[in-house]
Amino acid sequence: MVGPGDDAAVISAADGRVVATTDLLIENRHFRRDWSSATDVGRKAAATNFSDIVAMGARPTALLVGFGTPPDLNLAWVDDLTAGLREECGQVGAAVVGGDVVAADVITLGVTALGDLEGRDPVLLDGARPGDVVAFVGRLGYAAAGYAILSRGFRSPVQLVNAHRRPEPPYAQGPAAADQGASAMTDVSDGLVADLGHIAEASGVRIDIHARAVPVPLKMREVGAALNVDPLSWVFTGGDDFALVATFPAGTTPPDGWTIIGAVADGQGVRVDGHRWPNGGHEHFR
Amino acid sequence: MVGPGDDAAVISAADGRVVATTDLLIENRHFRRDWSSATDVGRKAAATNFSDIVAMGARPTALLVGFGTPPDLNLAWVDDLTAGLREECGQVGAAVVGGDVVAADVITLGVTALGDLEGRDPVLLDGARPGDVVAFVGRLGYAAAGYAILSRGFRSPVQLVNAHRRPEPPYAQGPAAADQGASAMTDVSDGLVADLGHIAEASGVRIDIHARAVPVPLKMREVGAALNVDPLSWVFTGGDDFALVATFPAGTTPPDGWTIIGAVADGQGVRVDGHRWPNGGHEHFR
Repeated sequence: MVGPGDDAAVISAADGRVVATTDLLIENRHFRRDWSSATDVGRKAAATNFSDIVAMGARPTALLVGFGTPPDLNLAWVDDLTAGLREECGQVGAAVVGGDVVAADVITLGVTALGDLEGRDPVLLDGARPGDVVAFVGRLGYAAAGYAILSRGFRSPVQLVNAHRRPEPPYAQGPAAADQGASAMTDVSDGLVADLGHIAEASGVRIDIHARAVPVPLKMREVGAALNVDPLSWVFTGGDDFALVATFPAGTTPPDGWTIIGAVADGQGVRVDGHRWPNGGHEHFR
Repeated sequence: MVGPGDDAAVISAADGRVVATTDLLIENRHFRRDWSSATDVGRKAAATNFSDIVAMGARPTALLVGFGTPPDLNLAWVDDLTAGLREECGQVGAAVVGGDVVAADVITLGVTALGDLEGRDPVLLDGARPGDVVAFVGRLGYAAAGYAILSRGFRSPVQLVNAHRRPEPPYAQGPAAADQGASAMTDVSDGLVADLGHIAEASGVRIDIHARAVPVPLKMREVGAALNVDPLSWVFTGGDDFALVATFPAGTTPPDGWTIIGAVADGQGVRVDGHRWPNGGHEHFR
């Protein structure tokens, strides 16, 4: 309703509530200019935040971007960054409504996304109950495999490398899962085991995962063999693909595209085929 | 309605619209740890954003904080920062609803504030019309004088030094000015002349300021004499006090506490006693 250029933006919130999340992304910690283009950085910065919005069951509406830039940064890089932010906004029907530009030693992005629940109850971390099924949608481990490939100086297979550069979160599935009655939901940004752990802890339940139900693509197995890494570590602990994982009460059906991978039980923590995942799954690939 | 700890926060927006603004603050560029306490930094970071919200005529409701921290930062510093953010929230009845913590080389704050128009029309930059009066409320030049004092290695007078460390924006006056029919409004963050310039440009008008109507406190005159600086440069070009400046249609009266300092006319730009201010008033003290 009021976009960039005034003291603040004004955004419609017809629902009477607004969903908001913020992330800070810093060069050489969250992205590298030699691994990702400016457009990639813009898309991923927006995706990181939109993913949190849809994980509440909301539709992203607006993006605000605080941009810290070294004084010698190429103007074309800034244009491409902006293009990437706008492209990702286009994926969800949101708009960049405000921002701030300051000088910084390294490229710094403070990104905030807003969203509209459109009348839905927000889907929180604490709603999982024993008997619920656990399901996910989106990609698991792709970005982590891509990061591992880039870290070792390789540039292919491009499908996995690009997954690190430019996630493709299943945005429409967040509101769809809420409509379908999801009892708890989060996006996979810390890794499947770690993020399910957040649901288990907040809900006071145990989550059992059946490893065989979790897909490991052939390409990822091949790369794992070549790099001497167990590809399951990418699938179970890799973040940055921004898959969605949710619990659904028994008797409800996850939306099309979701894969059931386990169940909620009494107890605590996350078990994969009955065992704890080493290190609790807390492995950050960002 | 949903605070920190989930994927995103949910904030009431009963008005059906939400006001949003974001700022990035970086150590040694926007604040110095040897000049400002952690509590000061937290209060100023929140104040910078709340000031933009009230300059739209809205009431601040929520704050989100992305926090980049060096790994060796003292935990007490973080506690004090948080206390400062919460204290400033307390000034306006807002709450810290979300955030993100990442590693960074220098302390980095990505701060986003949300606000509620409570049924008011937002007061924009582009509504000033010839014949309107120009008025301000709050402090002008105090923070800039304090910055000049600290820059020269002094620590007093404490009233001015503290104005740099911890602004006291006249929060309640933003919605009050909107209720009183303000036609344009902004907060003074770049300096009185520069910020009135934003109104003049957006509104397509000229703004005439009468220098004698703008107060220069005795203490500031004394410091100016001691430092060999014209105190008018602080009053007319200093930011960071977050005074509010607004235009009011002829026949309306600014709320109590506002000082009329000029008038809107046909033309363009800002004139002080009929003259352009040197450098257009664009002098950043942050």
